[in-house]
Amino acid sequence: MPEQLTLYLYKASPYSQKAEMALLEANAPYKGYQVDLFNKPEWFAGKVNPIGKVPVVTYGGPDVDPEDPSPLSAKIAESNVILEFVADLYPDSGLLPKDPVLRANVRFFIDATTKHVQEPFFAFLRGLESYENVLKGIEFIQGLLDESREFAVGDHYTIADTCIIPHIARLKIVTENDIGKFPVGMGYKLGEELKGPKFAKFMKYVERMLERPSFKQTHDEGFVITAFKRVFAGRVQ
Amino acid sequence: MPEQLTLYLYKASPYSQKAEMALLEANAPYKGYQVDLFNKPEWFAGKVNPIGKVPVVTYGGPDVDPEDPSPLSAKIAESNVILEFVADLYPDSGLLPKDPVLRANVRFFIDATTKHVQEPFFAFLRGLESYENVLKGIEFIQGLLDESREFAVGDHYTIADTCIIPHIARLKIVTENDIGKFPVGMGYKLGEELKGPKFAKFMKYVERMLERPSFKQTHDEGFVITAFKRVFAGRVQ
Repeated sequence: MPEQLTLYLYKASPYSQKAEMALLEANAPYKGYQVDLFNKPEWFAGKVNPIGKVPVVTYGGPDVDPEDPSPLSAKIAESNVILEFVADLYPDSGLLPKDPVLRANVRFFIDATTKHVQEPFFAFLRGLESYENVLKGIEFIQGLLDESREFAVGDHYTIADTCIIPHIARLKIVTENDIGKFPVGMGYKLGEELKGPKFAKFMKYVERMLERPSFKQTHDEGFVITAFKRVFAGRVQ
Repeated sequence: MPEQLTLYLYKASPYSQKAEMALLEANAPYKGYQVDLFNKPEWFAGKVNPIGKVPVVTYGGPDVDPEDPSPLSAKIAESNVILEFVADLYPDSGLLPKDPVLRANVRFFIDATTKHVQEPFFAFLRGLESYENVLKGIEFIQGLLDESREFAVGDHYTIADTCIIPHIARLKIVTENDIGKFPVGMGYKLGEELKGPKFAKFMKYVERMLERPSFKQTHDEGFVITAFKRVFAGRVQ
């Protein structure tokens, strides 16, 4: 019997979706518990994560109600740390290859996604930067992809794929709905740029990844749109 | 016979020192080659790292002169990726524990070092921020340390220790020599703050770590001072 594993998450958060997708891809038994980030339960900071952020995994200890977490479980925060943790718990899932060089390639891809996609995308969303760095970042990531391969690294699905897709799914929502603190219309405009031939290899990869059951089962587009409107447009629903 | 491993590094760079320390801690045979970042050899971007940054590890392929790198070796960049790579190549080194929860703790510590030490320290050095965030970051890291233990995580030296020490060594240099784009005297002042009782647990940990042979063998204080004066004070030597 594996140890109990509970994932505290928030459906609109790309970081939470990364963690949940990895658990699904590993066929890991887990309990998911949604934390309302706009109205956090009192016990969350005290018993799960003092910083108050999701995702967090509690692992081991007694099999308790997620609303009454045990001090005996390990608490694991930070989405990329959780991805590695799931890959470590399920070494045969292929979430990380066995070969050290391929593992390094997966980690380089994850690092590049943080620096070149996640950071410029959120800077654009917050109205701090134009989308130029988003396009440059996607170009960099595209350069890491191999047209003859289905996945980001090697011949199998890995946490490199898990890492990027929740961000791109939100980028898609932002470009289709023009949600963000940027000047009106810039979301649509970025969407048009991404449809150009320059990004065809990247967009084909994205299309394949958006078909994964682990993505579809964890994605609630309406929920993301509502939350993003609330946070990034300052409009309260 | 292990595959050839060459580390391209620059002695003043904390990222390079991290990579070299991990190789020493693993007792890994390697060739070190210093790249002069102020006068990069022409072949470096073309044959080793298109981005032009160090550290980079070349792994495998023929055992060639570092100045004539082979296209047949794997090229591995990003210091934290290299730390994991060395730990993967030498699983019995203890650089990463075997237990998944402890491995997650190591990775959380590394992530926290990047966000709470490295980033605010360089923002301070560049004169972009006061040192308040450096102190807050060190307080956060100190909270992760256990007084009864010698190392950052668990009972053994891990890449969590490797990750933080080169930054702290440079922080020490900056506070002892007041080198940086911050207002004159602020480096000394930060040094005084760190000597207070509030940071005693952290500083004791640092003192122990600065005694490690892997640190001493890779640290050239004079070289770091010269390079930091050149980069962060705008003074040409």
